[in-house]
Amino acid sequence: MFGRPPALASLLERFREGQPVALARAISMVEDERPGFQELLHAVLTRGPSARRVGLTGPPGAGKSSLLAGVAGAHRARSERLGIVAVDPTSPYSGGALLGDRIRMSELATDPGVFIRSMASRGSLGGLATTTKEVIDLMDAFGFDRILVETVGVGQTELAITAAADTVVVVLVPESGDAIQAMKAGLMEIADVFIVNKADRPGSARLVKEIRLAIHLRTGRALEDVPAHHGVDLSHMGRPAAEPAKPPAAPDAWEVPVLTTNALTGEGLPEVIGALDAHRGWLERSGQLGARRRARARVRVRDVVERELRRAAWSSDAVSARLEGGLDRIQAGEGTPYSVAEEILALLLR
Amino acid sequence: MFGRPPALASLLERFREGQPVALARAISMVEDERPGFQELLHAVLTRGPSARRVGLTGPPGAGKSSLLAGVAGAHRARSERLGIVAVDPTSPYSGGALLGDRIRMSELATDPGVFIRSMASRGSLGGLATTTKEVIDLMDAFGFDRILVETVGVGQTELAITAAADTVVVVLVPESGDAIQAMKAGLMEIADVFIVNKADRPGSARLVKEIRLAIHLRTGRALEDVPAHHGVDLSHMGRPAAEPAKPPAAPDAWEVPVLTTNALTGEGLPEVIGALDAHRGWLERSGQLGARRRARARVRVRDVVERELRRAAWSSDAVSARLEGGLDRIQAGEGTPYSVAEEILALLLR
Repeated sequence: MFGRPPALASLLERFREGQPVALARAISMVEDERPGFQELLHAVLTRGPSARRVGLTGPPGAGKSSLLAGVAGAHRARSERLGIVAVDPTSPYSGGALLGDRIRMSELATDPGVFIRSMASRGSLGGLATTTKEVIDLMDAFGFDRILVETVGVGQTELAITAAADTVVVVLVPESGDAIQAMKAGLMEIADVFIVNKADRPGSARLVKEIRLAIHLRTGRALEDVPAHHGVDLSHMGRPAAEPAKPPAAPDAWEVPVLTTNALTGEGLPEVIGALDAHRGWLERSGQLGARRRARARVRVRDVVERELRRAAWSSDAVSARLEGGLDRIQAGEGTPYSVAEEILALLLR
Repeated sequence: MFGRPPALASLLERFREGQPVALARAISMVEDERPGFQELLHAVLTRGPSARRVGLTGPPGAGKSSLLAGVAGAHRARSERLGIVAVDPTSPYSGGALLGDRIRMSELATDPGVFIRSMASRGSLGGLATTTKEVIDLMDAFGFDRILVETVGVGQTELAITAAADTVVVVLVPESGDAIQAMKAGLMEIADVFIVNKADRPGSARLVKEIRLAIHLRTGRALEDVPAHHGVDLSHMGRPAAEPAKPPAAPDAWEVPVLTTNALTGEGLPEVIGALDAHRGWLERSGQLGARRRARARVRVRDVVERELRRAAWSSDAVSARLEGGLDRIQAGEGTPYSVAEEILALLLR
């Protein structure tokens, strides 16, 4: 079913030797869906995932690139080899420099222990999410200790990519709106760690409180038990006086912390690294790491099957002929897209 | 292949009698993809499209709802029956009231010659575009003279929906950024009419100039020939002194006008209505109306085929069993999502 590329064996050999140029070529091959890209992925993925995958997401202007640089620096200080995937939105109304550009401009760009790949989300209706996850897999297979995935914006594509991480960090700032909006965007469902960045700004204490309340409402955990480790002084923040009794969370449940940072000064960064390590420990202890990987594999199989179904449908000459004839009949009032689709499906499916 | 609903005949009868309740029920059936929705669509679409379909799109805050109300009012004054579809974004960072809510609050809501349907774009990776286009088709089949489709935002979903109109109006405001950004978002490719709304604000003359330049660059048409009918006084706007010679546009090419409006005061609205009528005339004269309908039918067939392929894949017990076994093998290091996908495809495809 999948095509066989001529030079795949050579590329695979250099990839396995750890040549960054081979990784870059493999990524381009997957991004462009060049013949044999599925075989390449199959060949490198047989060993399964091993990198620690951390996704960061949040609205534009939340300071994610500064935070990413800080997190990456801390991991580099532990000699971890890092792969970074930055998914740049190209919404015409977002303004500002692209995330990938900003990362490239930082000192990370010249660090041989860091591999940065930027991907543009323009022009994609779902396909990007699959491709990006495949690029993450390539980086994992290449041997990075940790992969940081950065998405800007809150579309379904970004959510799908972010949810492909082992640990999902949602970064908000007081200006980005309240926690109710974050809940609406589906961020509550995917967040393993919340960060309120630019925590020196007005409204951050209130946002922390709202997020904790939202976690409380979602998990049924007593509000006092929602961790709120403050890397930035928020002693002026009040707490609700009394809370109704709630059933305690399951003993192996992860308690989503709400952290505060000031990425530009580095305040709160040690707590972020601590939370990432703690979440990794919990993932391994609880069996959730395996569960998440299985869930990811399930989504990937679905994605690949659907992509190949589309490919099979629209590369068939018989289907093309049936489609053109069908369009003639639709224009003549002798059919509808539904009757034509049914004819095409009969050609394709067993 | 498609299911047969029990009460379809009765619903169809009432739909064809013109009962708004039947239209509302049909729309819900399509939105929820209830059994038989494809058969319903097939049954009502055999007569083909006849309504004039106008899509309005642009960034949040461009004043589209005011403009839509003005355009709708002008068409109602000509006794046209109107269907309005408002696709509301639910981005947590867009802020403000939903478009549909705002329309409902206007006087249009109590006009029996107007049917308004609001659809939320949340939670969809492409599926929404198809469903929305099917709702537009239902409104067309119901007999409205004109259908106004309003999308907010610039995602691929919104572009896909907007491009399903006969005439696409792109609304920008000086605050929404420059024309280069609009080009990047793919708006240049789909716009039949540009409107610079809130044209009394600073920067509107410059934005008009930029859009005209972008059209000029795109079409190769001499800049002097790009129509710029000003409903709002922009006499202070300069023109480039000299332009290099360009080949003249094809005689049957549509000249995308760049209009200026102030939707709140109604300034420029007659010119908008004039441009919509002119574009309709051109569509019919040039044969482009038939070409666009055929292109739409082609996309629809593809959409329906792909939706049914997904349905066929994931409703099959044999596929489910193969998937679960495949996930076990992936976790045991004996397979990858690509090998499992290949097995599933072998079950599905002829």
